[in-house]
Amino acid sequence: MNKVVGHRVELSEIATSNTHGEDSPYFAGWKAYDEDPYDPVNNPSGVIQMGLAENQVSFDLLEDYLEQHPEASNWGNGISSFRENALFQDYHGLKTFRKAMASFMEQIRGGKAKFDPDRIVLTAGATAANELLTFILADPGDALLIPTPYYPGFDRDLRWRTGVNIVPIRCDSSNGFQVTLKALEAAYAKAEAAEMKVRGVLLTNPSNPLGTAVARAVLEDILDFAARKDIHLISDEIYSGSVFASPEFVSVAEIVEARGYRNCERVHIVYSLSKDLGLPGFRVGTIYSYNNRVVTTARRMSSFTLVSSQTQKTLASMLSDEEFTKYYIRTNRERLKRRYEYIIQGLERAGIECLQGNAGLFCWMNLGPLLEEQTREGELRLWKLILHEVRLNISPGSSCHCSEPGWFRVCFANMSLHTLEVALTRIYDFTQKSKTIKSLIN
Amino acid sequence: MNKVVGHRVELSEIATSNTHGEDSPYFAGWKAYDEDPYDPVNNPSGVIQMGLAENQVSFDLLEDYLEQHPEASNWGNGISSFRENALFQDYHGLKTFRKAMASFMEQIRGGKAKFDPDRIVLTAGATAANELLTFILADPGDALLIPTPYYPGFDRDLRWRTGVNIVPIRCDSSNGFQVTLKALEAAYAKAEAAEMKVRGVLLTNPSNPLGTAVARAVLEDILDFAARKDIHLISDEIYSGSVFASPEFVSVAEIVEARGYRNCERVHIVYSLSKDLGLPGFRVGTIYSYNNRVVTTARRMSSFTLVSSQTQKTLASMLSDEEFTKYYIRTNRERLKRRYEYIIQGLERAGIECLQGNAGLFCWMNLGPLLEEQTREGELRLWKLILHEVRLNISPGSSCHCSEPGWFRVCFANMSLHTLEVALTRIYDFTQKSKTIKSLIN
Repeated sequence: MNKVVGHRVELSEIATSNTHGEDSPYFAGWKAYDEDPYDPVNNPSGVIQMGLAENQVSFDLLEDYLEQHPEASNWGNGISSFRENALFQDYHGLKTFRKAMASFMEQIRGGKAKFDPDRIVLTAGATAANELLTFILADPGDALLIPTPYYPGFDRDLRWRTGVNIVPIRCDSSNGFQVTLKALEAAYAKAEAAEMKVRGVLLTNPSNPLGTAVARAVLEDILDFAARKDIHLISDEIYSGSVFASPEFVSVAEIVEARGYRNCERVHIVYSLSKDLGLPGFRVGTIYSYNNRVVTTARRMSSFTLVSSQTQKTLASMLSDEEFTKYYIRTNRERLKRRYEYIIQGLERAGIECLQGNAGLFCWMNLGPLLEEQTREGELRLWKLILHEVRLNISPGSSCHCSEPGWFRVCFANMSLHTLEVALTRIYDFTQKSKTIKSLIN
Repeated sequence: MNKVVGHRVELSEIATSNTHGEDSPYFAGWKAYDEDPYDPVNNPSGVIQMGLAENQVSFDLLEDYLEQHPEASNWGNGISSFRENALFQDYHGLKTFRKAMASFMEQIRGGKAKFDPDRIVLTAGATAANELLTFILADPGDALLIPTPYYPGFDRDLRWRTGVNIVPIRCDSSNGFQVTLKALEAAYAKAEAAEMKVRGVLLTNPSNPLGTAVARAVLEDILDFAARKDIHLISDEIYSGSVFASPEFVSVAEIVEARGYRNCERVHIVYSLSKDLGLPGFRVGTIYSYNNRVVTTARRMSSFTLVSSQTQKTLASMLSDEEFTKYYIRTNRERLKRRYEYIIQGLERAGIECLQGNAGLFCWMNLGPLLEEQTREGELRLWKLILHEVRLNISPGSSCHCSEPGWFRVCFANMSLHTLEVALTRIYDFTQKSKTIKSLIN
């Protein structure tokens, strides 16, 4: 970019605020990786990226599908469909695509919940879906309650342009970071004490960064709490197709159906194809709401963030093929399970314990025993050491607002098995060295 | 959508406001068309859609290109590029695509302005680009000044989620609706009197709905005005490739360069491929800013509204082919010119005058002489008559905040020549009938 020097004409408060969040360690680690990325041949001592929740383990399945079905991406004989598709900017989205999405979401839930294609609102990714819902459910200065630890991006997505606050529901390792009624009530009281109006709870199920699905009883409690307080419940289920072990995933959609849709007008589900299908570049998110006014308003608002009709067409074709989607969902789960077991065993060999996980593209690793001091600063010192000495970018729990120091999110699906092996060897060497140092000191 | 009845849980003020603008005649006309669309064979008495600024006259060129270059839309041999593309969610966008966009924007301006690919920020359409800039340049309660008549969607795009106000710069037919310094000062004073802080002028050049490019001298005046008041200038140039007659289009980029980039940090250009290339479904918009802080902030904010990487890939291929783009731009202009001349002659035969236009996909038609009363109500009565009796959906000037009643925007590029002929015949019959009635009354 050419340097343009001049008088500093004034920008808005949003533009000059730091709520974009890019100064956090979460993103700093990405930059360190970008500057010196690991490559098995050309840069074997480079930084390995374990801070990116990307799913690369099932790409061959998508590639095979597209090779066998060229009609999904090109325009058929005579390109007859191009014209119609290029012009299609209706904010309802392609009906074929919405139907395919609804069916895919049902399959992921083993047929235990129904989705009406007319309640699906398309957005350019879950980032946009979450912001859209926040604009619709809360006014500036209001609060959303979110269990900790949570995805660092929420600090930007839900707050930056909306002016809404996040009040953490503090969870801890004593019960595997599960949400309790007590923690919900405490967060609610804290928001009230700060004179914020609480408008909803946002739950990520399965959880990012924990890699665990929320238990049915906990879901029931949260929905009851939302009803009692007369607030909304947003259930971000973008990892729902990446549950690879028991206990089985329970969607809030199942609870809503089991309750005969009582109180359902406060329930909104976010989904996306970025994680389960590994297509973040295609920008496909969706809001599924049981509230008619929310559906109508979200659809109007989606004008700011529509999905390319070309991409809708390709994915409508792919996701309408039930034989393919069933095979994909099953195979992807099996592969994620193998990856998870592989990393857990490797970490165990290095003497590291993780929270027992059953979902997602990461594990939640406890390095508490390695901290020199049990504080956020101690955690960040260890994080820097691992980034610069061990050459691994992992995400510190403090960037996820974790209430206990020493926890880290480690991604395992965005690299080859070989790279994962290298990473695990580095971790093993590091913990062995740490042990030696400790025993020398003591 | 299944009916879900229940307690009305509270939504935000944004959600319950009417700033989405869908209750205006502009959209009501679209609905009337949707309910009974004209078809030459199956519904020859249906409503003809002349309220949609879509470019369908050059689709065959794009279709030919895609047929000759299947690699633009499919994934090549072995689909090797699919994986990389599907994962690409970097908010900088594909470098090849940004370069191609910059080059395309230069070609449209006949090489008279340079665009640095690193200043291009991609967004899912110009709708998102305009909202993004508003978030960045103005705080809630502040004002943007916009010359009337203007695109009705701005009332939603610039105001709904940002809380920013639009203060009209009132232009009139006495000088062909050109912006004057007097009108600029009057709008500024009006905003100040209402205790709004003015943060910028938004200019659409070429103008929608006028179909005219802004004269160089006027552009110079507006830029001087912005500098004097220390405010921003947004130049929405989404029709810059659809200028088909002299006087030639002058981009604000040319003025900025001619002035040696003095004051350029307050200048921001919006562009899109929806109009000139006729691809609204693909959702490709862009912000080009000379202000480094705006570029950085807009890029971060574009996370909410990214362009599908699949679509970036297809268009990078198409727009990098300079032989094709030159041919496309020239041919598209010639065809738009012929369409424009055709409709102007047809309207003349019906005794209707239009503002002399040289750009866009519409003309600005004066039906003032047909109004029963020279008011907004009179205009809307005539509009309803034309919609329901003549069966044409055109856009009333009042929906564009035109200060004089009787003007209408009529689109001519979103239909076949045959349909345009039918529309012109209907208008001719209508004006003849009106004349007869008038002569019978008098």
